[in-house]
Amino acid sequence: MTGRAHRTEDDLTAVEQVNSSFYAAFEHGDIDAMTAIWLDDPTALCVHPGTTPLRGSPAILRSWSLLMANATYIQFFLTDVEVSLRGDVASVTCTENVLTADATTADTSFIGARAIATNVFVREADTWRLWIHHASPVLSDEHHED
Amino acid sequence: MTGRAHRTEDDLTAVEQVNSSFYAAFEHGDIDAMTAIWLDDPTALCVHPGTTPLRGSPAILRSWSLLMANATYIQFFLTDVEVSLRGDVASVTCTENVLTADATTADTSFIGARAIATNVFVREADTWRLWIHHASPVLSDEHHED
Repeated sequence: MTGRAHRTEDDLTAVEQVNSSFYAAFEHGDIDAMTAIWLDDPTALCVHPGTTPLRGSPAILRSWSLLMANATYIQFFLTDVEVSLRGDVASVTCTENVLTADATTADTSFIGARAIATNVFVREADTWRLWIHHASPVLSDEHHED
Repeated sequence: MTGRAHRTEDDLTAVEQVNSSFYAAFEHGDIDAMTAIWLDDPTALCVHPGTTPLRGSPAILRSWSLLMANATYIQFFLTDVEVSLRGDVASVTCTENVLTADATTADTSFIGARAIATNVFVREADTWRLWIHHASPVLSDEHHED
């Protein structure tokens, strides 16, 4: 394996780890971790499932605070995680399999849901930061490439 | 206005034009134009509304051929178009207001639909090419920042 291939392998691993940390921050209701993961930039972009885009870290972080405050329990099982690198930009797609509960859910039950996410990270001072998060509901299991 | 500001203004205009060409290619069923707009790369990524991700230009272009073949009429009215630049990468968000007809639609009627799209373009040899297209249905008019 060449040095370059090593570097790529390391980058892919680093991006996948930051992607996991993003979901862990939501699970733990850790707004400080969430803030550290997002790129602090007016071009940052977030689309929650079924909603219109939010731009800029202040609006985006407010939305996460609200989501965290409203979820009494949330757990993500990520599947189909695929990472692609293009220089200092990386795209991740994954299926967010979500178990959640809120104030309206009985103590012993959960709500299950599934979304498709595109997460785009940019390298900044050797750290990968989340620039774009676009999540959308899955309405069909059909793979269009089939 | 400085030279740098001019440059940025030109880039924003160029990205918005390519973004419009992307929808025009779909409207005209022009797979050659669509092919030219997409980055020819295995990391290219496309999520059609409500579906799972397609990766790589061959799978992506096949899906557009299929969508074009099935739409007897389609017209896009783009609203809320916002372009952000970050070096050689640009993100565009827009609301896709769609008027469409297919084989099942009566001659005088249309189907109306609305989706939110994130389009990420990368600069390649002074041309902006589509790297990521993620479109999702709008289920709520709520702006989470409100």
